[in-house]
Amino acid sequence: MTTQSLDFQTIPEVWTRRHLLDLESLSAEELGCVLDAADAFKEATDNCSRKIQVLPGRTLANLFFENSTRTRNSFSLAARRLGADTVEFSSAGSSTAKGETFIDTAKTIEAMSVDTVVIRHRTPGTPHLLAKNLNCCVINAGDGPHEHPTQGLLDILTIRQRRGSVAGLTVALVGDIAHSRTARSNIWGLQKLGAHVIVCGPATLVSRHWEEFGVEVAYNLDEILPRCDVLNLLRIQFERQHTRPFPSVREYALLYAMNRERIERAKEDILIMAPGPINRGVEITPEVADGPHSVILEQVTNGLAVRMAVLWLTMNAGE
Amino acid sequence: MTTQSLDFQTIPEVWTRRHLLDLESLSAEELGCVLDAADAFKEATDNCSRKIQVLPGRTLANLFFENSTRTRNSFSLAARRLGADTVEFSSAGSSTAKGETFIDTAKTIEAMSVDTVVIRHRTPGTPHLLAKNLNCCVINAGDGPHEHPTQGLLDILTIRQRRGSVAGLTVALVGDIAHSRTARSNIWGLQKLGAHVIVCGPATLVSRHWEEFGVEVAYNLDEILPRCDVLNLLRIQFERQHTRPFPSVREYALLYAMNRERIERAKEDILIMAPGPINRGVEITPEVADGPHSVILEQVTNGLAVRMAVLWLTMNAGE
Amino acid sequence: MTTQSLDFQTIPEVWTRRHLLDLESLSAEELGCVLDAADAFKEATDNCSRKIQVLPGRTLANLFFENSTRTRNSFSLAARRLGADTVEFSSAGSSTAKGETFIDTAKTIEAMSVDTVVIRHRTPGTPHLLAKNLNCCVINAGDGPHEHPTQGLLDILTIRQRRGSVAGLTVALVGDIAHSRTARSNIWGLQKLGAHVIVCGPATLVSRHWEEFGVEVAYNLDEILPRCDVLNLLRIQFERQHTRPFPSVREYALLYAMNRERIERAKEDILIMAPGPINRGVEITPEVADGPHSVILEQVTNGLAVRMAVLWLTMNAGE
Repeated sequence: MTTQSLDFQTIPEVWTRRHLLDLESLSAEELGCVLDAADAFKEATDNCSRKIQVLPGRTLANLFFENSTRTRNSFSLAARRLGADTVEFSSAGSSTAKGETFIDTAKTIEAMSVDTVVIRHRTPGTPHLLAKNLNCCVINAGDGPHEHPTQGLLDILTIRQRRGSVAGLTVALVGDIAHSRTARSNIWGLQKLGAHVIVCGPATLVSRHWEEFGVEVAYNLDEILPRCDVLNLLRIQFERQHTRPFPSVREYALLYAMNRERIERAKEDILIMAPGPINRGVEITPEVADGPHSVILEQVTNGLAVRMAVLWLTMNAGE
Repeated sequence: MTTQSLDFQTIPEVWTRRHLLDLESLSAEELGCVLDAADAFKEATDNCSRKIQVLPGRTLANLFFENSTRTRNSFSLAARRLGADTVEFSSAGSSTAKGETFIDTAKTIEAMSVDTVVIRHRTPGTPHLLAKNLNCCVINAGDGPHEHPTQGLLDILTIRQRRGSVAGLTVALVGDIAHSRTARSNIWGLQKLGAHVIVCGPATLVSRHWEEFGVEVAYNLDEILPRCDVLNLLRIQFERQHTRPFPSVREYALLYAMNRERIERAKEDILIMAPGPINRGVEITPEVADGPHSVILEQVTNGLAVRMAVLWLTMNAGE
Repeated sequence: MTTQSLDFQTIPEVWTRRHLLDLESLSAEELGCVLDAADAFKEATDNCSRKIQVLPGRTLANLFFENSTRTRNSFSLAARRLGADTVEFSSAGSSTAKGETFIDTAKTIEAMSVDTVVIRHRTPGTPHLLAKNLNCCVINAGDGPHEHPTQGLLDILTIRQRRGSVAGLTVALVGDIAHSRTARSNIWGLQKLGAHVIVCGPATLVSRHWEEFGVEVAYNLDEILPRCDVLNLLRIQFERQHTRPFPSVREYALLYAMNRERIERAKEDILIMAPGPINRGVEITPEVADGPHSVILEQVTNGLAVRMAVLWLTMNAGE
């Protein structure tokens, strides 16, 4: 880690982007730049609990068209810890309900002298569309099942903090790969930084097409388990599934849940991650969620660090 | 413009009001005072994007009984750019639902040491009622179809910035005059500053009674178009209309929408304004909304400037 | 009052608690410590209207599982007047709806480097459960019918400011004692500070069991009225009552409402309090609510003072 070299006055030369739309288009150097900055902010703010005034008077607008208290508040807290103001827009009762187009809504928010729009929308590509039409910075906070880049970054940061580096590690993403933007952002980011990525889950939720991108596809967790350095247990999104992708929750838990018995057959230093909110007893048992291998709450704190880094880098790029 | 003379330490002597309830009761001098202050704040805050700490520690409460993300956030951002705190009250889940009277709700908010209450309510005169019962400042953010003074001010500011002065200009308000508080505030403000005001729209939405106040009433846009310096295209508020005031949207657009063909028959430097959110294809075509005559997004930015001015003036009046 | 001795640098030695869960477990010395600090903050902030930067960069999270605009905003304003940031979590659209456990929700909020969680929940004991599971400070903002300690404190502070001391006074809590957390917090706090407490209301809403704790139980307001120094008129919570505890509102008002006729038979300096929102014409008539004996709005302002004191004390305890 090269966090010592950051003085928070000027951003590293390698970073030139005013938007963070996905991890697929980022280079390994750019990924490393965000992770280094995140480490530096985490340290400078005493584990994300204090302020560092690097964006005084700047304004972040949260524009969320899907419910999210957690990600929204994480962005807000990150912005305010940098001295920026935040303002909330949501779909409920908004002007889109009055017939306004989506781009007009965003341009109007920008015209309130907003510096950054954080956008969550169920349609993939929405953040890219905004970035083309606005002059301010755009951060993707989840576009449908496509990407959720700050979630990918905070997962990778957590692995890097625990292991020093991501390169050479075997990381399995377990569960609902088909609906998961978190899975996609992790796959692109981890592969660029040299990790071996496995996607694992029921055949109804895990597509063979990932092999084209160099990802290992597995359907039996117990077979791959002994090789894994990290397991990232994706949430079964019951609220999104209209058809049942597996016979029963009990059956899913039997085949894919991380429990004490599986921990005993895993590497001694395996890291157990989950993007949360977790379904205890479904993808993870309570004793594993609260056990020594779990880094679930570190991921939440790292979410603040990563978002501080992203806001600082994008708002200072190209100036 | 006399913005140079403002030092943000003391307000001009002409301003003595602790409330902004309407534009009808303001003098030309008072209107000019707000507009000058708005220009000064816009310049001092780098186009409304930076802070100027003239109201540190003061508190603004948004008390909105009608949905509004945009106006609410504009007031919040304006307040925070002056160093003030903001707090949100809404009708949903509020104490009025528990049987409390409206005045008791407002007095309780004031008792939290709030300096300014910004009120939106569907009943005309509500802000005036509050001003009589509270000791803190009261700002009208829309009282039913009556007035929306800061919207009127931001419209007028936009014209003045583009033309240097409002006096002698011909300004047409087009569309739903009957339901529009924006129209009323524009009419009073523009006339006091010497503009010639035309209201234009279907007879079901435009009353002859405006002639009593010196306003020109027109039903044919194409007849008045060549004389107009400014067109302010009011939104057709589909969500408020229980009966159809015109045969069809297509018919309305045919007669009153601003499109390329009409722009060609208008004055070369005509300004096209709209309070937003706009219905593209109804009151305005996309090419006009995004064209060189449109100042729609400038209006949004000027909304911040005007609200900063109003908050600063009212909170410092009578001290 | 010993407010002069507070320098806001170090908290008094008597205060060692990182949580405020109830008043039942507080000693008279601890109660006095909060009240003294509240007086000091009220004075230092010019009646709660200015900032005092004693908690810069700290973060308060409001976690409300029951609707409350007023208490939530009072905590937010108190925190911001001390220089802290605030962030809002609510049950609507939150992760608990996605299957997350309550403790996991709270731990995730804490992992965002939050310093204090303010919790309101319909289940008694929820704040105590949180305090056992979190490392951050926990403040009870109402746990079902159990306690609402900051409401108790602000009521007691208001009495103390008006009378100099609570000891020796006779304070009657009138109305819906059965459902009232405000009543419980008042009873414990007032008794510890030496007041004589009477609970008074219809037998369906006032239990004899309070006598075991030294409280006088009365069913006839007119009989106890001449002896009372303070009446605290609890709200009839129509929205919580599934069965009717009394024949009619008119009957209740006849027996228990504070009106001019009863004021005339009361002590000359009687204080009339109500936690609000008030039902005018039910538990109190307008002329009493707005009359010289009423301290209802002082209670609201004192709510800010008490919450500033509680936040400052708990966040600095045990460091």
